[in-house]
Amino acid sequence: MCQLLGMNCNVPTDIVFSFTGFATRGGQTDEHKDGWGIAFFEGAGVRLFVDHESAIASPVAELIKRYPIKSKNVIAHIRKATQGHVALENCHPFIRELWGRYWVFAHNGDLKNFSPNLTGTFRPVGTTDSEQAFCYLLQSLHERFGDSLPTMSALRTAIDELTKDIASHGVFNMMLSDGSALFAHCSTRLHYLVRQYPFTQARLSDQDLSVDFSKVTTPNDRVALIVTEPLTTNESWQAFEANELKVFVDGAPLPSA
Amino acid sequence: MCQLLGMNCNVPTDIVFSFTGFATRGGQTDEHKDGWGIAFFEGAGVRLFVDHESAIASPVAELIKRYPIKSKNVIAHIRKATQGHVALENCHPFIRELWGRYWVFAHNGDLKNFSPNLTGTFRPVGTTDSEQAFCYLLQSLHERFGDSLPTMSALRTAIDELTKDIASHGVFNMMLSDGSALFAHCSTRLHYLVRQYPFTQARLSDQDLSVDFSKVTTPNDRVALIVTEPLTTNESWQAFEANELKVFVDGAPLPSA
Repeated sequence: MCQLLGMNCNVPTDIVFSFTGFATRGGQTDEHKDGWGIAFFEGAGVRLFVDHESAIASPVAELIKRYPIKSKNVIAHIRKATQGHVALENCHPFIRELWGRYWVFAHNGDLKNFSPNLTGTFRPVGTTDSEQAFCYLLQSLHERFGDSLPTMSALRTAIDELTKDIASHGVFNMMLSDGSALFAHCSTRLHYLVRQYPFTQARLSDQDLSVDFSKVTTPNDRVALIVTEPLTTNESWQAFEANELKVFVDGAPLPSA
Repeated sequence: MCQLLGMNCNVPTDIVFSFTGFATRGGQTDEHKDGWGIAFFEGAGVRLFVDHESAIASPVAELIKRYPIKSKNVIAHIRKATQGHVALENCHPFIRELWGRYWVFAHNGDLKNFSPNLTGTFRPVGTTDSEQAFCYLLQSLHERFGDSLPTMSALRTAIDELTKDIASHGVFNMMLSDGSALFAHCSTRLHYLVRQYPFTQARLSDQDLSVDFSKVTTPNDRVALIVTEPLTTNESWQAFEANELKVFVDGAPLPSA
């Protein structure tokens, strides 16, 4: 299995603190050492860093921990290989373009007997069930909506149906973003937290590290963090329900549909 | 305008020496300071680093100069904006997937009255003529060959025709790779060099730095470097002809078709 970390904000925010705790699980406090990756949206562009080394040993992860890249949508992943060997092409997040936007995807879980008929131009490069699921998602969205981006409401309904369909094949915790929203589907295990005014101190559970967010934020900032296992010990993380899709926009979940 | 650097090898090789000289032109010895990027194929996977900071100032470029990522196909680009503002989504190289492979593309030049009819699933995210040309190339290859990868000979003929077609709209020096070959089209200015046994010392033209390749290679290694302006002062760089496409495989250009 793997672990997921997502961030969705109303203003570009760096993820150095959360990533530092999360990356510790990539070989030190936990066993997810078969590669890792992180994608940052920056405007319409994406910075994607992937590495088949463990997040603990990777010089690229070291850079991310020191270089505060600011983004409104981030998706990160640490991998423990279940399907697909340890190779760069099997590291999440994956990226594709649809409707003139980049889409970024990462998955935690294991799908059984999942062999979607991929007939379009979204084809897996690696050998994971995850990349197959991503290609199937994008192919299905393209089939449903043609060449134009649908409304958020239509998109949400479609992604909700498609993720439930894929989840019928196994465990499918996933995060998907087009840079404007972060879609998070929980099959078995996902937590989230919204940090907003008044900000307080947060303490990592995986490292002896605290940040007083009241000193590095403005009262208007709002940040949603979504993660497999809570990252801090002194904040109230909320568990997703099983088979729940949440859509995060501007640092908060949209009301239930 | 911009500058391009490509490397194609028969064994995975690091590009630290050449990139160090090339990156110096990104704001120090030359004016290409509006972003930069580099893509490394690693097996079927790609590491893509893009930054809208100048290559001279970028912490990510600093990492590339220190971290010897080994690859058989690399494409790098330093940008001086002509079309499209300075933004991450306008930084080359660009990446898309076709036929279950990643394709990486970078362009130096300026296209006029180039508005291809992009009807498929390859659509530009940013606002450059370059990304439009890339999408047009992939759409045309997909239209021509359908859902299966053609032979190298057919692919080469198609890319030769398509690049000449695009080059009729202006300056179109470009590099394209699917991880197995590097296609380089020269419209106005491109040079190449094959380093092979017996290896000698090479001295950068943009920095006081030399490497004795005989000490870091084996007799079987072969590396082709393709670049806008020669990178070293003591090696024999060969200029491409105008409107010439060369295809590099295993560290050498294929014989003319």
